[in-house]
Amino acid sequence: MSDYFSISATVMSQLPSIRLKKNEERRLRGGHSWIFSNEVDVSATPLKPFGAGELAIVESWRGQALGVAYVNPASLICARLLTRDLHAGIDRIFFERRLRRALQLRERLYSRPYYRLVYGESDGLPGAVVDRFGDVFVVQTNTAGMETLQGHLIAALETLISPRSIVLKNTSSLRALEGLETYTSVVRGALESPVEIEENGARFLVDPVGGQKTGWFFDHRESRAVLAKLSNGIRVLDLFSYTGAWGVQAALGGAASVDCVDGSEAALRLAEENGGLNGVADKMRFVKDDVFEFLKRAREERQRYDVVVVDPPALIKRKKDVGQGVEAYRRLNQGAIQVLAPGGILVSASCSFHLQRESLHDLLRATGRSMDRHLVFFRRGGQAPDHPVHPAIPETDYLKTFFCHIGETL
Amino acid sequence: MSDYFSISATVMSQLPSIRLKKNEERRLRGGHSWIFSNEVDVSATPLKPFGAGELAIVESWRGQALGVAYVNPASLICARLLTRDLHAGIDRIFFERRLRRALQLRERLYSRPYYRLVYGESDGLPGAVVDRFGDVFVVQTNTAGMETLQGHLIAALETLISPRSIVLKNTSSLRALEGLETYTSVVRGALESPVEIEENGARFLVDPVGGQKTGWFFDHRESRAVLAKLSNGIRVLDLFSYTGAWGVQAALGGAASVDCVDGSEAALRLAEENGGLNGVADKMRFVKDDVFEFLKRAREERQRYDVVVVDPPALIKRKKDVGQGVEAYRRLNQGAIQVLAPGGILVSASCSFHLQRESLHDLLRATGRSMDRHLVFFRRGGQAPDHPVHPAIPETDYLKTFFCHIGETL
Repeated sequence: MSDYFSISATVMSQLPSIRLKKNEERRLRGGHSWIFSNEVDVSATPLKPFGAGELAIVESWRGQALGVAYVNPASLICARLLTRDLHAGIDRIFFERRLRRALQLRERLYSRPYYRLVYGESDGLPGAVVDRFGDVFVVQTNTAGMETLQGHLIAALETLISPRSIVLKNTSSLRALEGLETYTSVVRGALESPVEIEENGARFLVDPVGGQKTGWFFDHRESRAVLAKLSNGIRVLDLFSYTGAWGVQAALGGAASVDCVDGSEAALRLAEENGGLNGVADKMRFVKDDVFEFLKRAREERQRYDVVVVDPPALIKRKKDVGQGVEAYRRLNQGAIQVLAPGGILVSASCSFHLQRESLHDLLRATGRSMDRHLVFFRRGGQAPDHPVHPAIPETDYLKTFFCHIGETL
Repeated sequence: MSDYFSISATVMSQLPSIRLKKNEERRLRGGHSWIFSNEVDVSATPLKPFGAGELAIVESWRGQALGVAYVNPASLICARLLTRDLHAGIDRIFFERRLRRALQLRERLYSRPYYRLVYGESDGLPGAVVDRFGDVFVVQTNTAGMETLQGHLIAALETLISPRSIVLKNTSSLRALEGLETYTSVVRGALESPVEIEENGARFLVDPVGGQKTGWFFDHRESRAVLAKLSNGIRVLDLFSYTGAWGVQAALGGAASVDCVDGSEAALRLAEENGGLNGVADKMRFVKDDVFEFLKRAREERQRYDVVVVDPPALIKRKKDVGQGVEAYRRLNQGAIQVLAPGGILVSASCSFHLQRESLHDLLRATGRSMDRHLVFFRRGGQAPDHPVHPAIPETDYLKTFFCHIGETL
């Protein structure tokens, strides 16, 4: 590893620079950490000579040093700020301090060790995600810069928490944008998969190696707790159920019945296992089907539910897909409302960053109106507190969840 | 009471009309219920002949009937839609159906009878608010139209729930806009004030007659539950404490100490009583002071807190006060951050409708940056579920609460 990838404070002054064009330092000064390649004055400081992940001092057009970033000339986001402190080294100690701050928040929030410990930019560690499943830690690095530094991250985790296992789950599609390969690797300890975790008092089996992303989505934790509280004695439909996180918690909350619908047989098998683990599998049904097909059939058969959860995977992955995606969300929510009993509750979520909160709000308003229902939001949620939103970085805010009460217009 | 103030379906067709100008029906069609006086075609249907609170059919410029509204020619919002159903009478039965829908949501949400039962436009009852304190109901009517109809509202409450007492607390400053006097009146039963209520398991004494608004602000219920969960073992500062809703719940949550600061001696006395009622008064302090002065002194004396709650009364009441108000919010939040221990939590709320969510977001971002702190939002809340937001009526969405984790930048 070259000096440029792991520096102590004393060699900081030897770092190369990237200089921004006039006024392009504003986003950074506001608190953001990204630099786009078209913002760099490449005549003064060409990007090409940089190795992927190399460290650099970022300067304003006047030559004022703004902080230390890692650089990737191959990426549209060509640099991400790691620190504004020019005297801080970028080494294990740096990662320990960042981790300690992140851990302090999570330990305030949760008494049990199941949470997202590191949420990238919001925790001052751009490109890094760490989920904690007890003493098993799943690390994702999504940028060349963080890939280069992940040795420090892992060392800092070991110093601070002494994990039993650390899994590198470097499989995100974002890595392609950085010219990185995808791979999964158990880098510390052995991993007996699946791992058991806890969320809101419910138990779940998680497969960090074979599952989606880190294997669990902690981001809906709060909303699921709300669902559980609402579920006593009622009929719940969990669309895109994946491994049953919503459905099992509704069942534990006292639901009379829970139908889980998903297109993946493997996910449903795990959902059923999770139902069993919590002693509620007997009131759950697991239906392998296309969600749109399921809704169509349920409507035809005049099935009615008291709560329907619509929590699809990101239907809009790229900005240019917004139009088509919005139409899919509209059809989904309309279909869900059609199978709701009067006075029922629609839980409508979107994790697509490109679907703005305002767009989902308006889509639900318009759908309610066009169906002549009295639709109000009694709760508007987002990411759980272990996915904090950085106020200067809109990209850290992706999850929208609307709890709608849908009555007759009278 | 004339026929025009209390109609059955059979006489609906005899109602006078107000006709909108071209394209001015769009807000109504989108789901809103307000009509502004400049949207009415007064050459076709003059407003002046209408009595304050009189009912009318609202028509589009093409003469299509859109629904039934009450009218007040003296108000900028000259009419509010009550129903889109031209065959519905506006009578006790109408109010019963609306109340039943509102009650159904609250009974899903809460097992105990302490909540806002009616939240105006969001519950299809524009201009009406009903808070439920067990079997004591406090009704507020804020418009001439609802004032005219409040007899039906009260009758419907009696039919549906049989309250022990009903208090009309018609003291809102909004009433002046409608040309209405303010008054308080116990219209059913006798009222032994104060009344005891429950919020998140804590007990409070509420004074519906002498207190602010209905005597209690249920709107922060969820945020206070979050605060209580965070409070174990720590030092809490409750600014603008009023009768101690935040502070008492933090103390019950296990806080080591809670300082309540308010300018009102009477509010603090009730706060202390509430502390006693919950057996936590011994770890609470009640300070009568100007909040800015208190913060200045605390800073000078190097006092530190782990959590500071900033929940001021509406600092911006009119649109033209936004500039000055934003500066007050900025100074308040800066002062609060200055007395936070490292890694502390700022709970920053605003109930000013004219301070947009985005403005408070950005104000907190900028304050954190200017003080060189790492500030992230781990929770962004709003009104409790018994104050549902109507997606077509932005005016129903007024409360913003940001939970900020404030660390060192490192």
